[in-house]
Amino acid sequence: MSQPSACVILIGNEILSGRIKDENLPFLAKRLSQLGIPVGEAMVIPDVEERIVAAVNDARARFTYVFTTGGIGPTHDDITAASVAKAFGVAWTLHPEAKRILEAYYGDTVNAARLRMAMTPEGASLIPNPVSAAPGFRMENVHVMAGVPSIMRAMFDAIAHTLSGGDPVLSRAISADAREGDLAQRLAEIQAEHPGVDLGSYPFGLGERIGVCIVGRSTDKADLDAAMDKVAAMFRALGLDPEESDPAATN
Amino acid sequence: MSQPSACVILIGNEILSGRIKDENLPFLAKRLSQLGIPVGEAMVIPDVEERIVAAVNDARARFTYVFTTGGIGPTHDDITAASVAKAFGVAWTLHPEAKRILEAYYGDTVNAARLRMAMTPEGASLIPNPVSAAPGFRMENVHVMAGVPSIMRAMFDAIAHTLSGGDPVLSRAISADAREGDLAQRLAEIQAEHPGVDLGSYPFGLGERIGVCIVGRSTDKADLDAAMDKVAAMFRALGLDPEESDPAATN
Repeated sequence: MSQPSACVILIGNEILSGRIKDENLPFLAKRLSQLGIPVGEAMVIPDVEERIVAAVNDARARFTYVFTTGGIGPTHDDITAASVAKAFGVAWTLHPEAKRILEAYYGDTVNAARLRMAMTPEGASLIPNPVSAAPGFRMENVHVMAGVPSIMRAMFDAIAHTLSGGDPVLSRAISADAREGDLAQRLAEIQAEHPGVDLGSYPFGLGERIGVCIVGRSTDKADLDAAMDKVAAMFRALGLDPEESDPAATN
Repeated sequence: MSQPSACVILIGNEILSGRIKDENLPFLAKRLSQLGIPVGEAMVIPDVEERIVAAVNDARARFTYVFTTGGIGPTHDDITAASVAKAFGVAWTLHPEAKRILEAYYGDTVNAARLRMAMTPEGASLIPNPVSAAPGFRMENVHVMAGVPSIMRAMFDAIAHTLSGGDPVLSRAISADAREGDLAQRLAEIQAEHPGVDLGSYPFGLGERIGVCIVGRSTDKADLDAAMDKVAAMFRALGLDPEESDPAATN
């Protein structure tokens, strides 16, 4: 089967101004990778209708799934839902089920601003928000989610079972106190011998220790293991002691 | 004067797999904002030539400045320089000055893989790397820098004085224990009264405390202060106690 792929669109001026360090891409990247839906690209765009329309239409044509985060709250700068409606060429209308959810949650404090969060593109299906009620939504292959990480995670958990994943992407990481320039030639040979494995080389400096971590990623366990055995042998041939590490660890 | 703008392109499979949490966009966003060159968009793309070519050509046509990070090391997955050459339609060739720098730094351990880091697009000017010698480079409005944050930062510091900034973007932040839905209407009015100020509304939850932070950004201090005075008054009218906070703080 051909592997599905995903595009993540982070919407929000606060990421582009450096005020907020995004946590949503690392979360989605890991979870989608485990589901066999690797993230092929991500975009960070401002709260500007024209840019949201362009990004959504570009991404939904090129990727199996699109996930947006941000811009679905009650304030004037929350324009994602209206912009996604425009991208699909449909009306931005009150979703009756979303209205019921918000009225039940807010009771007497429901108002025009809060009911704006019940507006979706015509034909959207809701994504439940167990944290703060106001739902996300799905239009075809585009999933529109909150920007607040705790809410986004809950929304993703609610829809994960609806995604058709490919083979899970397996990964292994092997590190040693090497310098990239000393292993580049042999590593390129191993990559050429295992085109089905994606071999990445990541130098690190931790205090006094300087080294390289080689991360292999593949949907084929036997191929991955064969390539990583060669990576370990490459380090040993340089007189180094390779060590397996957590491929998900940040360094 | 019209305000210059920047696009940041993060190149690397490791960000898209969730293995690495990017630190370069927050750094560049803050520094460029201070220089009056707000980041208008960012892209995260894989180590794939076709995608690098497309992203660089898209970005350099739309933005005053483009900054790329990642993919300029000595290993097979470092294809940024060759891809940027292709984007500009020029040859990818050995840069004599870069070769001298690398030979001086590596001495006897210089080899073919390391000299690959001296290959740049024809006509590029070098960006010095005071950390580990291998330079970045500039082609017209595109600045190609390392992905390792400490090296990227040193490279940016080396070129910051060459950038023509606009008016610095000033920002203020005022928070209170409010809910967005209760202030959305008045906030939209303030935004309409001050179109030259970008007002963002960011809900936060810190332990027991739930609130909203309103961030204003503008190149016009008087306009910004007038808008933020109204924001403070808006909170007070809700019976709340607004507090000024560091607009650069992450919450």
